[in-house]
Parts: sequence; structure tokens; C-alpha cells
Amino acid sequence: MIPDWLTRPIKRPDDEMRALAAGRQQQLTKPPGSLGRLEQAAIDLSALQGRERPSLEKVRIAVFAADHGVAASGVSAFPQEVTVQMVANFANGGAAISVLAGSLGATLEVIDVGTAVDPGEMPGVISHRAGPGTANLHQQDAMTAEQLDVALNAGRAAAERAREADLFIGGDMGIANTTASAAIGCALLQTNPIILAGPGTGLDKAGVSHKADVIGQALQRYEGLHDQPIEALRCVGGFEIAALAGAFLACGQQGTPVLIDGYIATAAALVAVRQQPALREWLIFSHRSAEPGHSAMLQALDAEPLLDLSMRLGEGSGAATAVPLLRLACDLHNGMATFADAGVSEG
Amino acid sequence: MIPDWLTRPIKRPDDEMRALAAGRQQQLTKPPGSLGRLEQAAIDLSALQGRERPSLEKVRIAVFAADHGVAASGVSAFPQEVTVQMVANFANGGAAISVLAGSLGATLEVIDVGTAVDPGEMPGVISHRAGPGTANLHQQDAMTAEQLDVALNAGRAAAERAREADLFIGGDMGIANTTASAAIGCALLQTNPIILAGPGTGLDKAGVSHKADVIGQALQRYEGLHDQPIEALRCVGGFEIAALAGAFLACGQQGTPVLIDGYIATAAALVAVRQQPALREWLIFSHRSAEPGHSAMLQALDAEPLLDLSMRLGEGSGAATAVPLLRLACDLHNGMATFADAGVSEG
Repeated sequence: MIPDWLTRPIKRPDDEMRALAAGRQQQLTKPPGSLGRLEQAAIDLSALQGRERPSLEKVRIAVFAADHGVAASGVSAFPQEVTVQMVANFANGGAAISVLAGSLGATLEVIDVGTAVDPGEMPGVISHRAGPGTANLHQQDAMTAEQLDVALNAGRAAAERAREADLFIGGDMGIANTTASAAIGCALLQTNPIILAGPGTGLDKAGVSHKADVIGQALQRYEGLHDQPIEALRCVGGFEIAALAGAFLACGQQGTPVLIDGYIATAAALVAVRQQPALREWLIFSHRSAEPGHSAMLQALDAEPLLDLSMRLGEGSGAATAVPLLRLACDLHNGMATFADAGVSEG
Repeated sequence: MIPDWLTRPIKRPDDEMRALAAGRQQQLTKPPGSLGRLEQAAIDLSALQGRERPSLEKVRIAVFAADHGVAASGVSAFPQEVTVQMVANFANGGAAISVLAGSLGATLEVIDVGTAVDPGEMPGVISHRAGPGTANLHQQDAMTAEQLDVALNAGRAAAERAREADLFIGGDMGIANTTASAAIGCALLQTNPIILAGPGTGLDKAGVSHKADVIGQALQRYEGLHDQPIEALRCVGGFEIAALAGAFLACGQQGTPVLIDGYIATAAALVAVRQQPALREWLIFSHRSAEPGHSAMLQALDAEPLLDLSMRLGEGSGAATAVPLLRLACDLHNGMATFADAGVSEG
């Protein structure tokens, strides 16, 4: 059932470069450790990029958009038509991720993996549709094996286009996709939906409670999903979540570091890392979402994100916001003088 | 005893611009609040800069360096000679803050407010010396009223040079200055030194305990310092801390927003805000230092910093690291489409 390519081995980070970079950090003109997490970020990037001096010049952002049948079960504060409206907004430069990509000098691509209404040809949007939105996971499997295949491949293709990039970011757009992501999290972590279901774009307390019920009812149809991450993705996931999981796995296989965004991207990362634990090393976690269930998924991935700014937009926006921190980490690593260079006494 | 200029009124932020900016945030194509703290940052900057579209193009960083007599009491992991060596490293571009300023396109100036050995004329360093380091606060007042005056004025002059800047950052360099900062914090917050004394550049447990004893013994000489922030600064502070406090007050008076760095800058901010509470609105807090006592000072200032990256270097490095976040907050605020512009349905 699982596409062959998903099981191809993940590339090993370069431990020699990691050791060189760690040694260099000890020699820079600062008390050891005083740049905190910026030091480890530079060391990790050295190992992932296989260079003594890491760089984040070429950042590539792929935003995957799709619709979710479960929107019909009343789990979102926004109507489903917003998904395709936002696809146009991404392409026209008006969305948050469009602005962020511009500010960062990053390449942004938008991939339609299956909005409810096919927008047809739209300049700046890649069409790689798995269907007109998923089926309603509340009542049936979200997608067929064939649809899953198409969606995973949409991600793989985006990763391949990012082969020359220094860093890959995967973003999401899809009304009701926090429900699908929470359902995946509940399936894989065997967690009560009340822990992982949150307000998303703005549900009230009753709305969150209903969302948790929908997820709980959906999961009653299945057994043993926690051991089958790709099957969980098919049964209760979404096209854009599958595309993200596929992209992350392909990035790990080809050796492109990935900066993980918030709740949706983390659910996809959870699927991908459960499928191939060696992928974990390729993932840098950018931010802790305001969506309360995010922390449980981060913990399961042993991830401590760089930022905690109460963001909860998706689109890759949290990851994009963390890019300058990683760039500064590289600049410090590459540009600071050593104690010997500067004639500064060591402690 | 207090220089007249310190009591001149703080400028009022522009509430009309704040309301306009808050209204605009509600119209941008995202669920309201979903950009988290980036939204409030843009709104605050609008009010402080008095513009509907805030900007952080011109960032000015002033690093104040000075020595501390209390270094003789064995409170630092590094020897005192490092202060002046680092001044040269700042000017030569090899220090962390030099690299960060370059990456950000920020203007960096280095001010010698009183290193132990006068470095003489040094290209790229402004000499505004209050003396050859402070006296040892363990045994006597750290500085005279005249020295305090010179140090405060060094900060005021730096703020005046930043009059055209969109944002001011004050950094510090001074072996043993976490001891002076902790002593100020203890005096103003009436806190046990064990709460505010930390490892600084790398003390072990016994070293931290000795540092707390030194501070406790010093403070036994005084009474009522908690009500006299400027006098506390004179008795147990440092030249660079006084310069920072002076710079912050002058920035508030002239209307330049300030991004506060870590432990040392926060101690200076505490002095300045205790002197003039209206200054608080002009201060944006960049990061939570790894120095454990920082949190108590932040809490006293009702400050929740943007970053928590376990940094503990000083120099203004934490503040510089947060600049890109504020720039992205401005870009999003200024550049995103509204629901009406983009034809996106509201929730």
C-alpha cells in the first residue's frame, strides 16, 4: 500500500562538518554557549548542508492548498470558499506568506493539491490535484489510496524543485485542516481529541468541543492506526498534509534541510518521522503555535521550536518568520573573529 | 542630586495612529489575531513612530563599555583586560554585535564610558569616559555624583545621535557587570541577591554564591535605595549601565522607540522606568536572557520579551537578533492585502 519511494533511505547528516562547526563555535569571541540556540542552529546547519560555513541564501517555500470534506461537519469558523480565494491571494502577493517571502527574498510557489472548486489555470499556481477536496473524514476515509499517492507526489515534486535550495519550508492552506491534523495526531499519539482539538481560525468553546467529538467519532472506525502513519494520513488526513509529509520525506532523502511551520506542518512531520525516524534530524522546528494541541505533537517529536509568538496562521508564516534567526546564526558562525584572531583573552 | 534633564517629560505615543493601525490589522487577509505578537508589535510601532505604516529601516546600535571595581572581588569568569580587548574587537568588526549590525544594515557605534585602562584614541570608538572603571561596590560607592553625571550624559548624547533613527538599541560590555546589574535589581526590587545573581559569563555554583554574598554585603551599607533609582545606580551600578539608563530616558523624551537587550540593559531600563514610569511605553523587550535573574526584572517591568533563545552575551546581541521579527511585523502590516482588496470572505 505504501509507495516504494517513501521507504528510500534518508541521507545521513555530515558528522565531520558538525564537529568542525562545534569546534569553531568554541573559538569565537564570546563566552562559550552565550549565543544560546543560535550556536546549535549553526552547528546543525553545517552538518545538514555538509559545509563548514552554512548558508541560507536560497530559501524555497511551497504552500499546498486543499479542501476538506469535514468542513461540512461545521468544524471551522471560516467558509470553505476561502481556500480557493486565498490561493488567488497567495499568487497575487497579498497574503502573509507572500509578503514574508518577498521580504526574505525567498522563492514562493503555490500548489493546488485539491481545492473543492478547481480554480482552473491561475498564474503562479501549480495544479497537482488529488481531487475536489477530501471526503468527510467524519463519515468515511478521507481519501483513496490513489488520491493519497497523488498528494504525496505533489510534495515529492516540490521537494525535487527545491533540490538546489539551502532550506525548504512547506506551508498549508485548507479550511478545516486543523481538524484533519488533530485527527492524525490523535491516531498516532493515541491521545484524546480534547487534547489536540483547538480553536483553529477562531472557534468558540462549544465549537472546539464539537470538533473534538467529530474527531473522536471518526477514529472509532479504525484500529491500529497508531502503527500505520501513512494509513492514518489516508483515513483522517488531507491532501495538503499528505503533500507536506511527502515533501519532508523527499527532502530528507535528497538532503535538503526543512524548517517546520506550525500545527498542520507538525502533524505532517509526525507522519513522516513515524514513517522514517531518521528524518527527524533534517527538521528544524520554527515556532510554537497558539493552537493548544501543538505542544503535544512537538513533544512527541522531541522538538523545542525557536519562536513562541502566539502565531496560528499556517501558510508557512511561522517558519518564514524564523528564517532571519537562522540567517543571523549563520552570519555569526561565519563572520565572528576567534579569540586568536582578535587577541582577546579566554576565560 | 539628580541632573535636571532626567526629569524632563517623556513624549506621549500617538493614540490616533495606534487606533488606525489596530483597525488595519483587523482588515488584513488572516483570521484576526493569527499573526500573534507580530500584530501588536506593528500597532505599538505605529503609535511610537506616529505613522500609519511603521518602518525599521534605520536602526542605531550604541554599545557602551566600562569596567567595574567589583571585578577585584572575584565575581567574573573572565579577566578584566577583556573589556578593552572587546572594545577593539567591536571596532574591528569581529564581535557578535559587529556581525549582527552588518547583517541588519544597522549603524553601530562603540562608546568607551570608562574602561580600566584608557585605550587612547581608537578608530571607531567614541571616548566619553567617566573614570578608569568604577570603584569596588563591594566596599564603597561605585561612583561619585560627577562620574554618574558624565556616564548618564554619554547615554543622552548617544540618544541624540539616534534622533533620526527608527529604533535605538543600547548594548553593554563590561567584565563583572552582571554583578552591578544584579545589585541594582536587588536594591530596587528589594530582592534577595540569591534570586538575581547568576553565572554571568560562566561562574560555577560556588562562584554564583560568592557573587550573591558580595552583593548582599554591599547593600547592607545603604537604606531606602529602592525609592531612589538614580542613587542606586550611583552606589552599586556601573558607568555603562548609567549610560544605558540615560540613553533610554533621552530616547523617551525625544520619541525614539527602544529595543531592550538582556540582563544589563534590563537593569538599566528598571532604573529608568522607576525614575519615569511613562518611559515604559517606549521600551520593546527583545529577549529573555539565560541569566536566571532576568525573569524577575522583566516581571517587575511587566515585560514579555519576543525571544527566548538562551542567549546571554550582552553587547545588544539579543536585541539585534529580534530586529528582523519587528521588520517582518512592519512588512506584514504594511504589505498584506485587506479582505476587501483581495475579495476574500470574512469568517
